[in-house]
Amino acid sequence: MRNLTMLTDFYELSMMNAYLESDMADKVAVFDLFYRPAPNLEFAVAAGLEQAVALIKNLHFSEEDITYLRSLNTFGEKFFNRIKNFKFTGDIYAVREGEIVFPHEPIVTVRAKLFEAQLVETALLNIINHQTLIATKSLRITQETEGAVSEFGLRRAQGPDAGIYGTRASIIGGCKSTSNVIAGQMFGVKVGGTHAHSWVMSFSTELEAFRKYAEIYPSNCLLLVDTYDTLKNGVPNAITVFNELKAKGYQPVGIRIDSGDLAYLTKRARKMLDEAGHHDAKIFASGDIDEHIISALRVQEAKIDVWGIGTKLITSSPQPSLGGVYKLAGIEENGVMVPKMKVSDTPEKITNPGFKTTYRIYGPDGMAAADLIALRNEVFDTSKPLTIFHPLETWKKKTFTDYTLKDLMVQVFSGGELVYKMPCLADIVKYAKQSKNELWEEYRRLINPHEYKVDLSETLYLLKQRLLNEAK
Amino acid sequence: MRNLTMLTDFYELSMMNAYLESDMADKVAVFDLFYRPAPNLEFAVAAGLEQAVALIKNLHFSEEDITYLRSLNTFGEKFFNRIKNFKFTGDIYAVREGEIVFPHEPIVTVRAKLFEAQLVETALLNIINHQTLIATKSLRITQETEGAVSEFGLRRAQGPDAGIYGTRASIIGGCKSTSNVIAGQMFGVKVGGTHAHSWVMSFSTELEAFRKYAEIYPSNCLLLVDTYDTLKNGVPNAITVFNELKAKGYQPVGIRIDSGDLAYLTKRARKMLDEAGHHDAKIFASGDIDEHIISALRVQEAKIDVWGIGTKLITSSPQPSLGGVYKLAGIEENGVMVPKMKVSDTPEKITNPGFKTTYRIYGPDGMAAADLIALRNEVFDTSKPLTIFHPLETWKKKTFTDYTLKDLMVQVFSGGELVYKMPCLADIVKYAKQSKNELWEEYRRLINPHEYKVDLSETLYLLKQRLLNEAK
Repeated sequence: MRNLTMLTDFYELSMMNAYLESDMADKVAVFDLFYRPAPNLEFAVAAGLEQAVALIKNLHFSEEDITYLRSLNTFGEKFFNRIKNFKFTGDIYAVREGEIVFPHEPIVTVRAKLFEAQLVETALLNIINHQTLIATKSLRITQETEGAVSEFGLRRAQGPDAGIYGTRASIIGGCKSTSNVIAGQMFGVKVGGTHAHSWVMSFSTELEAFRKYAEIYPSNCLLLVDTYDTLKNGVPNAITVFNELKAKGYQPVGIRIDSGDLAYLTKRARKMLDEAGHHDAKIFASGDIDEHIISALRVQEAKIDVWGIGTKLITSSPQPSLGGVYKLAGIEENGVMVPKMKVSDTPEKITNPGFKTTYRIYGPDGMAAADLIALRNEVFDTSKPLTIFHPLETWKKKTFTDYTLKDLMVQVFSGGELVYKMPCLADIVKYAKQSKNELWEEYRRLINPHEYKVDLSETLYLLKQRLLNEAK
Repeated sequence: MRNLTMLTDFYELSMMNAYLESDMADKVAVFDLFYRPAPNLEFAVAAGLEQAVALIKNLHFSEEDITYLRSLNTFGEKFFNRIKNFKFTGDIYAVREGEIVFPHEPIVTVRAKLFEAQLVETALLNIINHQTLIATKSLRITQETEGAVSEFGLRRAQGPDAGIYGTRASIIGGCKSTSNVIAGQMFGVKVGGTHAHSWVMSFSTELEAFRKYAEIYPSNCLLLVDTYDTLKNGVPNAITVFNELKAKGYQPVGIRIDSGDLAYLTKRARKMLDEAGHHDAKIFASGDIDEHIISALRVQEAKIDVWGIGTKLITSSPQPSLGGVYKLAGIEENGVMVPKMKVSDTPEKITNPGFKTTYRIYGPDGMAAADLIALRNEVFDTSKPLTIFHPLETWKKKTFTDYTLKDLMVQVFSGGELVYKMPCLADIVKYAKQSKNELWEEYRRLINPHEYKVDLSETLYLLKQRLLNEAK
């Protein structure tokens, strides 16, 4: 297993050293990892916890790491003595993978000694930011399609990990399969794919290439038809080969179109296939597709059964970052948590203080009605009505009488020990689907989604106001 | 070392199996890796070769890989016999890392048995696409600044590799340092950084936090001043601490501003620092900066000495993919290279056939005047005039009399053996700077850059026309 302990920003280490030198390294602090409002990120699908947990469990500095850090002439002997046997000993709470989350809601909360909480900041952000971003993009894409979506992006991913873990996140967000073999192997995901243009170009004629392919894969015959001319050669040649396959008792899978006007080409190709009696042959489409193109193609009644989505999914184009942050929310002084808050002239950038969690409020229909960020020590009695209010426009109120609450966070580490049973990917996929289905599609739509309520408990709201007044 | 042999699309493996079954696996083919015209990618900085070479050298299928592939019920025994002892035995040519390249120019050319050339497609694209993209973004950013740029993006990178190799590419593109410790360790790059807001918030007052930091790092004192109120508290507190440092004989490094109106804040902060006698204290700026913001801040005469650039650099926002492709250019039949070409109704998508390289034409001033893509077996006599012409608007001609030619590609592998001495990163950085300086800035500017000429040799042009006519 790769040791990613050094996957950190230099300032984490220089702060750790400075906390040691200031006798503050063992103070217990609480940090929240969350994201701020951004276009196309009105909601997000939490992902990456499994890899974050693996990283935390594996934290250790090797001899080479220590030699390298010594060469930087920044750190004192106390620091090297401490990191020699470094182990994470804190608590971590997190939202389950696949859960829908909203801006400002803690996705991960770390309660640990300053020395340890600071070390894990960068790597946690790196992993959670990435997978949450791609899982969200995948949900946005897959919810627009009626057909299945296969993830095709490895070649355009930002390096090997972006391909591997981007595939994992794509599956959490709703993709059914991938072209990525190593991800298939690592995560037990279904892999698939047809052939490239190069296969067709390696033969004297397209028909010969198709025939040979059908001969080798008679029961899995999916032909790429746009190497030369989709409608003039590609589809007719595919039909010829499909006829031959059928005569031998095989059912052709279908054709793939990777370029050109997908609305026009798929409608024409469908007609040609149907007229030749190949009603069951599917049409696969690929080539620079994103959620907006899918939506437009559906309006145009393009005939696409399966979508292969690569570049724009695996890079989350044009929004390639979630922008998650990791902010100090409190420090224990003599066993009492003193809440901390980052102040800013921009209200969106003011953090929520204290040791918190988020509750999802469900109505009697089982659908998510609102979220409530609250302090961890608050108790809610669901037999009594619950009134929530907008955190800025406080006159906007809503009272629930018949409702249930779900704590969105689970404890993952307790005193450095893993206490959460990590679900397998198939279970995460199921959970993600359920979380999505609990959210009305008005909140999820691409254009002008309805704003989902994320309010603060009255206790948290008052704490925040007090700290704001003290700061200014 | 990680085994990334399985970092491939499924269709590469299914084609490899099909080539074996068709007795074509040992045919020698030529594939070009290149990118197509795209916004903000009028030119690119080639990068990633070192990692691509490492991957090729390390290609091998483990027992677990073979077990997994068997479970897919797609491949025949011939396939498993062949991959058991897989080794790459072909030739690879590539542009040097740091070289400026243009659309359609081969960045990597693989000449190998179809079986081998197909296997390496996805991984080569993944690595070269990513690093070339980020090196290009880095050049676009760093050329806009007068001050130094430090890469700060690890927390927003698309997974660990995107952070690690994105940092490497950023350095090739012109960044001077990084916050990324593991990249610093792996590539010998200068690492740096100051403290986070959490450091300031961990103390009762900002002044106390600054004093403590200055006490621990007296000769490396860079203070983040925007935790509460930049001009009202942050800068005045920094000045107090800088005065104390100076009294002890230390030179303060400066301040960092991470939010707010950077034009206004840096000008005011500069004035305050200067009035306090801290003319040498530098101003570092960070926070969602890209090349266009830098350009705008310079026009507004913002006072920024060092730039910390994270998210938009490490993800190449809003253009997070190079879109590189890997296309068949020829197949040897009985020892003779038969050129191959992908036809398309979009002229930009028609490939260049044959076994090729690119020459850069330099004028007597040593500046790059144009590029010429030519067949590898062509010979150019630089003592004679050279006339080039536009590949579509062929009446646009230009004749060079006093010129030199540089072959942009070097041979990297010969018969599977590495024959290129990989330069160290410092030498790549030097080479990149030289390649950039040979290109007039009119070609490199952000808005409406002048179009650099990339023409085809007459022989290549005529070959392409012939194949086009034969295809249609």
